[in-house]
Amino acid sequence: MPIYNAPTKDLQFVLHDLLNVSEQDIPGFDDLDRDFTGAVIEEAGRIAAEVLHPLNVVGDTEGCTLENGVVRTPTGFKAAFEQMKEGGWTAMDCDPEYGGQGLPYVMHSAAQEPFVSANMAFNMYQGLTHGAYSAIHAHGSDAQKQTYLPKMVTCEWTGTMNLTEPHCGTDLGLMRTKAVPQADGSYKITGQKIFISAGEHDMAENIIHLVLAKIEGGPEGIKGVSLFIVPKFLVNEDGSLGARNGVAVGSIEEKMGIHGNSTCVMNYDDATGYLVGEEHKGMRAMFTMMNEARLGVGLQGYAQAESAYQNAVAYANDRLQGRDVTGPKNPDGPADPLIVHPDIRRNLMDQKSFVEGARAFTLWGAYLIDRAHRNSDKDADGLISLMTPVLKGFLTDKGFEYAIAAQQIYGGHGYIEEWGMSQYARDARIAMIYEGANGVQALDLVGRKLAQDGGKHVMGFFEMVKTFLKENEGNEALKKDFLDPLKAASKDLQAAGMYFMQNATKPNNALSGSYDFMHMMGHVCLGLMWARMAKAAQEALDAGASDKAFYETKIATGRYYMARQLPSTAMHLARINSGGDTVMALDAANF
Amino acid sequence: MPIYNAPTKDLQFVLHDLLNVSEQDIPGFDDLDRDFTGAVIEEAGRIAAEVLHPLNVVGDTEGCTLENGVVRTPTGFKAAFEQMKEGGWTAMDCDPEYGGQGLPYVMHSAAQEPFVSANMAFNMYQGLTHGAYSAIHAHGSDAQKQTYLPKMVTCEWTGTMNLTEPHCGTDLGLMRTKAVPQADGSYKITGQKIFISAGEHDMAENIIHLVLAKIEGGPEGIKGVSLFIVPKFLVNEDGSLGARNGVAVGSIEEKMGIHGNSTCVMNYDDATGYLVGEEHKGMRAMFTMMNEARLGVGLQGYAQAESAYQNAVAYANDRLQGRDVTGPKNPDGPADPLIVHPDIRRNLMDQKSFVEGARAFTLWGAYLIDRAHRNSDKDADGLISLMTPVLKGFLTDKGFEYAIAAQQIYGGHGYIEEWGMSQYARDARIAMIYEGANGVQALDLVGRKLAQDGGKHVMGFFEMVKTFLKENEGNEALKKDFLDPLKAASKDLQAAGMYFMQNATKPNNALSGSYDFMHMMGHVCLGLMWARMAKAAQEALDAGASDKAFYETKIATGRYYMARQLPSTAMHLARINSGGDTVMALDAANF
Repeated sequence: MPIYNAPTKDLQFVLHDLLNVSEQDIPGFDDLDRDFTGAVIEEAGRIAAEVLHPLNVVGDTEGCTLENGVVRTPTGFKAAFEQMKEGGWTAMDCDPEYGGQGLPYVMHSAAQEPFVSANMAFNMYQGLTHGAYSAIHAHGSDAQKQTYLPKMVTCEWTGTMNLTEPHCGTDLGLMRTKAVPQADGSYKITGQKIFISAGEHDMAENIIHLVLAKIEGGPEGIKGVSLFIVPKFLVNEDGSLGARNGVAVGSIEEKMGIHGNSTCVMNYDDATGYLVGEEHKGMRAMFTMMNEARLGVGLQGYAQAESAYQNAVAYANDRLQGRDVTGPKNPDGPADPLIVHPDIRRNLMDQKSFVEGARAFTLWGAYLIDRAHRNSDKDADGLISLMTPVLKGFLTDKGFEYAIAAQQIYGGHGYIEEWGMSQYARDARIAMIYEGANGVQALDLVGRKLAQDGGKHVMGFFEMVKTFLKENEGNEALKKDFLDPLKAASKDLQAAGMYFMQNATKPNNALSGSYDFMHMMGHVCLGLMWARMAKAAQEALDAGASDKAFYETKIATGRYYMARQLPSTAMHLARINSGGDTVMALDAANF
Repeated sequence: MPIYNAPTKDLQFVLHDLLNVSEQDIPGFDDLDRDFTGAVIEEAGRIAAEVLHPLNVVGDTEGCTLENGVVRTPTGFKAAFEQMKEGGWTAMDCDPEYGGQGLPYVMHSAAQEPFVSANMAFNMYQGLTHGAYSAIHAHGSDAQKQTYLPKMVTCEWTGTMNLTEPHCGTDLGLMRTKAVPQADGSYKITGQKIFISAGEHDMAENIIHLVLAKIEGGPEGIKGVSLFIVPKFLVNEDGSLGARNGVAVGSIEEKMGIHGNSTCVMNYDDATGYLVGEEHKGMRAMFTMMNEARLGVGLQGYAQAESAYQNAVAYANDRLQGRDVTGPKNPDGPADPLIVHPDIRRNLMDQKSFVEGARAFTLWGAYLIDRAHRNSDKDADGLISLMTPVLKGFLTDKGFEYAIAAQQIYGGHGYIEEWGMSQYARDARIAMIYEGANGVQALDLVGRKLAQDGGKHVMGFFEMVKTFLKENEGNEALKKDFLDPLKAASKDLQAAGMYFMQNATKPNNALSGSYDFMHMMGHVCLGLMWARMAKAAQEALDAGASDKAFYETKIATGRYYMARQLPSTAMHLARINSGGDTVMALDAANF
């Protein structure tokens, strides 16, 4: 049975030592003192460990079942969902006007991590609802907000996002689902949507589907896509539930993982839908909430790696195998624990230094979202827009990679389902795919975000790194282990950016390097986080912090990342600089 | 439904254009002319595609079932196994004295690839038998050989390898299974073995278990381990089957993949066993066949990537999504196929250039085994011994990585079991673990093989690369794209070797870099293969080969590998050079 303990101390370190949240000039942040955030995270961690985590294996083993149009979630999911609702965990950062608690997004994100680590499939029911809530909140009419949001904030009604169709995912312009205007202002929606997470289940009274469809006679392609609310049960004027709408689950998918979440084929057959926002502006409505949704998926990536890591550490301390090459560490036992072996440590340090860096990067991203929204800060908005594909693509690629690495620590037992390590890997795998496959994230980054607003945001990021290096150039404790590697990696990243600029007229050259650039940028971001964390930890030590071991471990972990992960920027640069010719050389027939 | 077509042309290219097998001074190689090897591979490919591949999904979906001590293999497995026996495919490289065909190992390996690509789980029944055959062949008495080998060559009786116990895998010195000598010269074996592939099943009359156990009163630890034959049914003097032996399957494991293979817990309860070779020399007997077994697992790694790649290419050509950034390639269709996009090509070229390089590397390894065995060539023996951990560790890590990459091409469909891409990834995953987890391979390489015979073999390898570079320095067609990158990568590898030598007294420094060194060496080996293949392809083109597209594609694919994969040696070197301090810094309690 896998273990899980919420990393409360580290989440607090990121919020306070690194991001200094309680002293930011952002509305609502003054509430975020150490005691308050600590209490919230501790309670979230308790629920995650005691309620959600034991259901993780149950969800994987039982999966969801469809019978006569009814989807049953795994044993215990419904009761746990009730607990989440009762605790107000679904409403944390939602608008108080609709019953939310109005807390900053960074607080929501910090509290989410334990939930996602403990049971990713379970948490998606709430996560999708939150996404649908955000879209209606940003683009719905007042009447729509009054009708749907209060129930969605509490998760009495859950939500879904319906984008993909059998023949199109990334290229939504190919969409076929049709919307036919009705005399009463509503639409009749007809079509099939696939991969609909939480599309049908037994944990909510109503399900509010957000559906992208094309209004008949509208523009071709992506410019003719509109967004609709299609409730499972129509809602009467008094808020009570009315007739069943023309939407039904066709089947549920057998997937590699996240078995606890019902992934549905949804059939819409003259279903009544209500336009959200303007006609043909559905994609814009989707994009609004994309930064949050993608950051949430990036969080899934590292959160699964965190769970897997915790178990790998426990196993490495427990399992006796071989002897320390420098002399026995457990001389009275038949062998030493795995953790004495350098290659086991190399693996664990890879995991640890990634997860902690990723946590800092993600919460920094959440903080930027708060700054963008609550302070209408355009620079923060531009920066998070630039970072979003990196948060999503890099953290999910690496999160999966390290879930696999953690599984490897277990040897043969890692491959046996009973030990639980396979599930972390299988669950983590989806995060690389959904919410825009990672290749699409790379395309978004290099093809769109780098040049956004005249390249202002990427220049701003480079400036931020430079300023940090400049401000700390006299810090001898940081120089060799942190500042120098960060400088070198940042230089590599700039050189890659330069290559793209020089190849502006040869898009295949730039796009052949997009994936490498995304990873490079991920490393530089984590490198920056680690340099900042090392500085914060050093300051805490200098100030006589009582928990010396924590801060010293933080610095040592950062040193590892800088020495052993950051050098990969040079490899990515070499790949990028080799251009697109070798990538594009073959005729399609010769693959 | 996934597709599979055997890469006959490429296997032939490696055997003849690269390895020039029919002109080697190795007994038996003169049979290997182009027509003969072509006919064998074509027929193997036909069976793989028509018989084994359709059963791959069946095996994954149904799995094996245990009821009342009987394991049932998936529907169709038994009939297919009969076809494999009847075709003589199980006997290809076995000793003619026991009914084998006596073909070189390189021919066996080339014919194995399609079987493994088409259905890895199925092929393991035969693969394990082959391993047990080899151990008895090398170490058994004449009587044992006469009794067991003829039936094992035909797979009428299958074999197993019993090493792992619940508390020990890598560290077999901790083993508890006991062997008690009997008056008649046999032993009574008692203990539990786990992860026994093909431990029990319904496709053979008898199962010959090879079991490691400790003879009571023998030396402690690994030096007290002996090897025993423990047949499921005892064999009478006339060769007929006698009483059921005291060995039984306890349970079968639920695994992440290779569901078609029954992975058993085997319980030995006073089972009659017969010593193979000398007392307490069981590990030596195991090691004899390790090179072949590990090469076979490396082959599994790239063979799964090959299958996944073929499907990814088909999907990328079929699926319409988005437009070529340089202008529509399918202007009359609603969108262009995925394969027009640079990042899709980057991904496919990563896969293709790996698989083809890995194929060459593996068959070169098989050729070295033939040279070592058939010519008693000590240099070849030393070289393959050095290469074995690289073949196993690098090819299975990368094989899995590219099975995941192929799955990624499918977007959301890749995550749905129905499309088959998840199975390739899940099946490929085990190859990184069994037959010595890849971290153990790295330890074997750096901790043992580099220094073997005074470092003679690794120096020989460097010399081989140097000689190739020297011999071809005037070849302008190769210089920039192949020779220069190979030279740089080889220099990185030598620098890493130098670092290890300088740290001979600080084993943690060397071993912290072992995994990186294994990957580095893998890249240099594939780089050498690609340089040689490019040369061979160029010569074929110069000689007016009719299949120009094939050879040109070969060179273009090699160029990709050299430009985009080989530069990772510098990253691995940087990691190695950073030493062991950051790796070993933390107390175990601070992970």
